[in-house]
Amino acid sequence: MNPFARARAASVAPVGEQELIRRIRRWLGPACPPAPTGIGDDCAVLGAGRGPRLVTVDPVVYGRHFDASIPARAVGEKLLKRNLSDIAAMGGRPEAAVVALLLDRRVRVDWLEGFYRGLAACARRFGVSVVGGDVAEAEGVLAASLTLLGTTPARPLLRTGARVGDRLYVTGLLGRSVATGHHYTFTPRLAEGAWLAARPEVRAMMDLSDGLAKDVWALTPPGAAPAVRADLLPIRRGNTLSPKPGGGVAEAELRSALGEGEDYELLFAVAAKADRGALERAWKAKFPRLPLSCIGALVRGGHRPADAIQLERYRGYEHLR
Amino acid sequence: MNPFARARAASVAPVGEQELIRRIRRWLGPACPPAPTGIGDDCAVLGAGRGPRLVTVDPVVYGRHFDASIPARAVGEKLLKRNLSDIAAMGGRPEAAVVALLLDRRVRVDWLEGFYRGLAACARRFGVSVVGGDVAEAEGVLAASLTLLGTTPARPLLRTGARVGDRLYVTGLLGRSVATGHHYTFTPRLAEGAWLAARPEVRAMMDLSDGLAKDVWALTPPGAAPAVRADLLPIRRGNTLSPKPGGGVAEAELRSALGEGEDYELLFAVAAKADRGALERAWKAKFPRLPLSCIGALVRGGHRPADAIQLERYRGYEHLR
Repeated sequence: MNPFARARAASVAPVGEQELIRRIRRWLGPACPPAPTGIGDDCAVLGAGRGPRLVTVDPVVYGRHFDASIPARAVGEKLLKRNLSDIAAMGGRPEAAVVALLLDRRVRVDWLEGFYRGLAACARRFGVSVVGGDVAEAEGVLAASLTLLGTTPARPLLRTGARVGDRLYVTGLLGRSVATGHHYTFTPRLAEGAWLAARPEVRAMMDLSDGLAKDVWALTPPGAAPAVRADLLPIRRGNTLSPKPGGGVAEAELRSALGEGEDYELLFAVAAKADRGALERAWKAKFPRLPLSCIGALVRGGHRPADAIQLERYRGYEHLR
Repeated sequence: MNPFARARAASVAPVGEQELIRRIRRWLGPACPPAPTGIGDDCAVLGAGRGPRLVTVDPVVYGRHFDASIPARAVGEKLLKRNLSDIAAMGGRPEAAVVALLLDRRVRVDWLEGFYRGLAACARRFGVSVVGGDVAEAEGVLAASLTLLGTTPARPLLRTGARVGDRLYVTGLLGRSVATGHHYTFTPRLAEGAWLAARPEVRAMMDLSDGLAKDVWALTPPGAAPAVRADLLPIRRGNTLSPKPGGGVAEAELRSALGEGEDYELLFAVAAKADRGALERAWKAKFPRLPLSCIGALVRGGHRPADAIQLERYRGYEHLR
């Protein structure tokens, strides 16, 4: 659905702010608890909570993260799931969200309804309360930023902590996110992230959002370099892992898997001396339907083996360029 | 300063996302602690904290909350202060913020530097850490949403809780916020809000952002009505409280004080049976430079006295209309 109405009557303009906020609360339904825990006071008031707290913020912007071809409900889901993926990457549990909406007054009311209903359904599925928000007008724009709060067990799994010799693993499949719709149908790896954070051999973790070729450097300690092998990459072909006839990886597929972005899978480092077989067997028992792939290792800088991908050639998604 | 550059070289376009984030961290300086407490991991990790937690979100949008006449530093300050005012309205203490920036690639780098440096200075002044954020591109836009986390003593002061007979009070002066620059030079009433929340006779509180005529209804319980007297309103004339020659209140001043918005003062209800003299003396001893005014009371619906303002005539700021 095109989010922008041709007729003023279908847009938010005649609705006005106060009535729009009333409707948003209705669309959110049980995902939005009553004030003061939810929307309706100057702040939302949450319980004291336990353990370290997590905070993350990510937007969806019309023309960038979605367009008229994506159902409004899926846009609301995507907004929350992008942030859930960040909580998953720390091994955390999500808790509460606030949503800042920026919209042109020509935006359709029924588009917004779909957006908030999709957000609410996803929030209920993952145990998140939508506790606050803001609606502001901006010409020609439709964008929403969601701030997600979570908690973590005693040890949040950081991006730092990997060392030379550690093996690199990814969950799921990489690439072709836009063509396959994965960029909005994906499932944030919350259960997997929490499970991995509890394994002592997992030293560092992050989620893949801008493409492996760009993101992997955040997990790479100073003086080290990632050595990733193309034949080990779990490349998405259609929506399956079927091997390419004749073997090998086509350049276009490799480019997509390394640089397209929006994979929303977990990338993590496993200690060199760990029993990888035990980890992989435990994974298969716990998550039998989600592939886990060892894609390479961290080597000393300048010691990249000949069969490793030259990642510099596959720049990940760089915003603003 | 016009936030949009004529020459590409002065804009963010040639800088790129990763370098821009590096600069933002530098501009934020000590207001932005190192990861994992600050920017740089998938989420920011905060300590466990004590007592109930507060969350609020408010934006600044170019063309709506600021324009080229407002210094970039003041825009950064305003963004944080709008949210601080919400924390103040609960009697809370601010703690950590995340900032979602939406910008056209023509936005000037030096405008952004001023914005983040102003935000950082304000954050240090009020003891806030900027722990995370996001930068996304959107054509023709310059907007930032800030989510602020805080804590509260055992009793957060809500909007609900006032009763018929309670007196209505406001801090500071109302009106002429745009003409006087108050809309960005204001001071969020954090110390005052925390002090008021600890007084048992204060039953309900909120901050004034859309104008008293609209906002006061949020403090008014069902079946009640606000009875506010024009001669009791602390109206801003220039920046002083000097009385109008000949007494009385000009209609234009009244309209601005009730409906212009962006006052960022506290409105609160005091129990009818409380010793108001004692409250006012204690206030004067604690906050000698900030006026405190009793502007009326909550009466039973349909029993508005003849000298009360017909608030319906002064609709507060309504977004999207």
